[in-house]
Amino acid sequence: MKTEFKPYYAVIFTSTQNKNLDGYSEMSEKMETLAKQQNGFLGMDSARNTVGITVSYWDTLEAIKNWKQQSDHLQAQLKGRQDWYSWYNVKICKVEREYDFKAT
Amino acid sequence: MKTEFKPYYAVIFTSTQNKNLDGYSEMSEKMETLAKQQNGFLGMDSARNTVGITVSYWDTLEAIKNWKQQSDHLQAQLKGRQDWYSWYNVKICKVEREYDFKAT
Repeated sequence: MKTEFKPYYAVIFTSTQNKNLDGYSEMSEKMETLAKQQNGFLGMDSARNTVGITVSYWDTLEAIKNWKQQSDHLQAQLKGRQDWYSWYNVKICKVEREYDFKAT
Repeated sequence: MKTEFKPYYAVIFTSTQNKNLDGYSEMSEKMETLAKQQNGFLGMDSARNTVGITVSYWDTLEAIKNWKQQSDHLQAQLKGRQDWYSWYNVKICKVEREYDFKAT
């Protein structure tokens, strides 16, 4: 029996960074810790080479909005625009379907 | 005036790889070239550290389905499951909203 799929939301954050990243990794860790404490947080994945991609998952659009407006996060966003990011893009997406593969 | 946002689709492919990656990078390049030739392909971003994230963008669900069933891509998927990936997850998402930042 296939269980019913309950849609949830993904925030795809793609970015390119500046050379001077003073304070970035501490802030990044802090934001990850805080995000995990938010209501509706489901998980996140990150990787960075030329471009960085962080995808976070949330149970509702409301949860995404609350995290966007969280006060420490607002400061981090400002600092990010001032110092660390040369460019970023944020996409709010509804996850409609998914499947997995696991090697045996 | 704000132009109207036209929803499109994202495929979020997250994966972890095995140690032996013989033939992987050639196949990966070939698939990127072929994906770009598919109808409805809009773009893609990739990064890999512990986990790899590739997000590709498509104008319709039909375009995603066609790419999934493209014959060279089917062979690549099989090879990926047999040899290269210990795990992967595919999420089909509708992009509902987005915004950009660019440093001046």
